[in-house]
Parts: sequence; C-alpha cells; structure tokens
Amino acid sequence: MIENVALIGAGNLATQLAIALKKKDIKIKQVFSRNKNSAKELAEKTGSAYTNNLSELVPDADIYIIAVKDSAILEVLENLQLNETKLIVHTAGSVPMSILEGFSNNYGVFYPLQTFSKSREVDFSNIPICIEANHPSVLMKLENLAKNLTISVNQINSDERKTLHLAAVFANNFVNHMYAVSAEILQNKKLDFELLKPLIAETAAKVQELSPIEAQTGPAKRYDQTIINAHLNMLDSQPDYQKIYSFVTESIFQLQQKHSHDIL
Amino acid sequence: MIENVALIGAGNLATQLAIALKKKDIKIKQVFSRNKNSAKELAEKTGSAYTNNLSELVPDADIYIIAVKDSAILEVLENLQLNETKLIVHTAGSVPMSILEGFSNNYGVFYPLQTFSKSREVDFSNIPICIEANHPSVLMKLENLAKNLTISVNQINSDERKTLHLAAVFANNFVNHMYAVSAEILQNKKLDFELLKPLIAETAAKVQELSPIEAQTGPAKRYDQTIINAHLNMLDSQPDYQKIYSFVTESIFQLQQKHSHDIL
Repeated sequence: MIENVALIGAGNLATQLAIALKKKDIKIKQVFSRNKNSAKELAEKTGSAYTNNLSELVPDADIYIIAVKDSAILEVLENLQLNETKLIVHTAGSVPMSILEGFSNNYGVFYPLQTFSKSREVDFSNIPICIEANHPSVLMKLENLAKNLTISVNQINSDERKTLHLAAVFANNFVNHMYAVSAEILQNKKLDFELLKPLIAETAAKVQELSPIEAQTGPAKRYDQTIINAHLNMLDSQPDYQKIYSFVTESIFQLQQKHSHDIL
Repeated sequence: MIENVALIGAGNLATQLAIALKKKDIKIKQVFSRNKNSAKELAEKTGSAYTNNLSELVPDADIYIIAVKDSAILEVLENLQLNETKLIVHTAGSVPMSILEGFSNNYGVFYPLQTFSKSREVDFSNIPICIEANHPSVLMKLENLAKNLTISVNQINSDERKTLHLAAVFANNFVNHMYAVSAEILQNKKLDFELLKPLIAETAAKVQELSPIEAQTGPAKRYDQTIINAHLNMLDSQPDYQKIYSFVTESIFQLQQKHSHDIL
C-alpha cells in the first residue's frame, strides 16, 4: 500500500497531482524542486517538507514520483541516492518506461492524461490515469494508488502512451491554439472573445456524444469555395494563419470524403 | 411584437431555432424546405404547417426567417412573393445584410453564434445572437425576439459578423478537426477515443477562465525538439497530419514568443 509520496518536481502536473493525492489522505512527505521557491510554494499547499537538493531526499517514501520536464528525467535519476528496492515512477507521456531501468528494481509510469496549470484545480475523478510497471506487484500498487484518484485506470504500455500523447497534443495543444488564433482574429477587429465561449463549450460537449466526424459542420465540410476564398482573403495579412486555414480546410474535406465513402 | 414566424429552411440551424422559439411560445406558423420530407419532419416537431413551394408561403407571418445555406439565400429571395413591408431576416454569418436590399423595406440579420446539429438540442439561454437591421424599429423587434431566447444579444454589423464567422471556423470547425485527427491517431493503434474526452472537456473549460495564451502547455510552447521530432516521425504515413503538426507547432511557438515579448 502506498501511503506516502516523495514528489520530484513542482510544476503544473506535480502541483495538481500533489493536491489531489493529499485530498485522498495520501501524504506528500517531501517536495523536491531545483528551484527552492517552487518547492516551498507547493510544500506549503500540501503540508510537506521540501528540498532543492536531491541528496537530501527522504530515504523512506513509499513511492518517488518524478514529475519534471522530459529532458530532466535522466538527470534526476542519475542523482538519486535511494535503496534499489524503492519504487520510482515517472509521469511523462512521451518517455518510455525503460528510462528507469537500472536505477531501481521496482519502477513504472503513472501518467494522468490531462492538461494542468498551477493555478487551476482539476477534478481527478474521471481523468484517465495510464499505468505501466516492470512487475505485476508494482502494477498492482500503482493501480491501487490510481484508484484512489479516478474511476479511469488504464494499463497502457510505453508505445501506446506515446500515441496517446501525440493524440493529446492535437486534442489539447492544437485545439487551444485554434482558440488563440480565433481570439487574435477577434481582437484585431475589437470584438470580444466572450462571444465565442458558448461555441467553444458546445464544440467540446458535442464530441462527448457524437464522433468528431459526425459533429463536423461548416464551409470546409461542404467545400464552400465562396466562403473559403473570402476567409483566405481576410487572412491576407497573417500568412501563418492563412496556411493553417488552407491545410486544415483541405484536411477536413478529405476526411469527410473518406468517411462518406465508408458509408457507401 | 413578433408572435409568429415563417421559417424558410429545415436544416441544423433552422431545426434548433424552431425548437427554441416554440419553447418560448413563439409560433412557427409554417416551415418551408425544398425537400418536402425535411419540411414535414421539422413541422411535426413544432406543430407547424409546411410547404416545399415558396409561392405557398403564408402571407401574414410577423417575420420570415431565412435559414438556408448561404448559396441558396438569393434564390429564395428572388422567389418570395410577399408584401414589401414584411420583415425578412437571414441567419448567415458570412452573408452581408445588403443581400436583402430591394426585397423588402424591413430587413435584417439574426445570427446565433453556435454550432447546430439536427439531433442535438442546444440550450439557447447563453448563445450570443448577433442582430443587424436596416432601421431602428426593425432592430428593436429583432432585439425583443432575441431576448426571448438568450441573455446575450449583440448588435453586430455585417463586417464584424464576417470576422466572427471566420473566428468561429477556427474555434469550432478547426477545433473539431483536431479532435477528428486525434481520434484517427488513436484508432490506428486500437486505442479508445474515450481516453481523450476528459482532456477535451478541460481544454474547453480552461479558456472560459484563462486566455488561450495563458492556457497553452505542451511541447510546441517549449519548442521541445526531441518530442516534436518524435511526433513528426510517428506521422510519417500521414503527410497531411504531419504538415498540420509542423505548421501549428511553429505557429504556437511564434505566438507564445510574441506574447512573452509583450510582457517584457
């Protein structure tokens, strides 16, 4: 049973994971961050000790959760001074489990598939947590930990997780960029982004029920040349957005065609 | 006071608008569609008469709402046989109000900024309705009609409406396509789109509070070359999606840079 955690990292994911674990009475024993202020800030939220020195890490946590940026994981591992039986996991979508090999006999991955900000608390109860482990006994421990937080616990291997992360980049980062572009288009004409918020909410709500193919509407789906050309003209001064408009429009039409053929 | 409506069109928008108006005790006197079955189907939902012949349109509705695809509006107008005082509006984002000039003395635009499907009922109560009219007295009538449906009634001219529609294409059609691409990426590896739904919901919820610039996370924002290259490799067999990935990643990075400079 995992009853307490040493958390390595104090960024967006680390912060929200720590808050969620604490709510479920799992103790955050200690927070590490290279940046002492970040470590302290999170430690204060979770009533934890903190350090900015990996050699001062508590030796007896039930699990060591590495929640730092991908490129820093290896450096963290190389500087850990833990007993080789200690359970270590990382939380990264795109990093294979094998990076942990050789640093412990008990290791795995604990990847919550969600977007996190330091300031915005999220409800973990339906967030998919993707777990992987080097041993069935470790897997069971991770499963129990995840079940404390969410109803959606998924055994996902490193290859699948990489695919999930790529898909998440489209569904989150790229989606958010479409919001950003629309906000900028409005701002240039002094129109209020508020006007788009109900549309944004409904667009996301729609695909909770319909498939994205069924949910699609608009000029690209119909390949309405008049509107498409008018829109491209309006983007004349923003060639980057014009390029995105062209490619995405083309891609929408192709995908709709492909699926209409499927039906025939 | 507008107490009843003749609705020209029976598509997604026409259907949801008719249902919403009826709920507010505004009578849908008659539904027209070129396709008799579509007209009948909607008329049955709203307890209305229906026709597929424009010359059979009731002569005495308080308002004639044209909710057909953009390219069909002019043809509808040319075939109307109404008294020149009758109030006519269209509902199109990208069509200027001036298209109605010469067909009546009282005209305007009634544009609900939302995505509609025939099958999915939407709550109109916070949907922005954008109105424009050729005369203050007409504007007042449209404002009163819109207030029946929503708290968000906005006077928006034809030029602004075109900009709104372009922004809506990014925030809805293009966003939905990012969902579609992510669904396809998962499907190719037999992973379940369900896994992305909480992320999709949170991504939309986040920008109800934070600006899209603040909400952005992920490899493009950090310009994490290792992950970006790995993702591009994974898309090798889908050059369209690879292109979208490159351009959007580049564009996210540029926009984040621009805004970080703003702050300095």
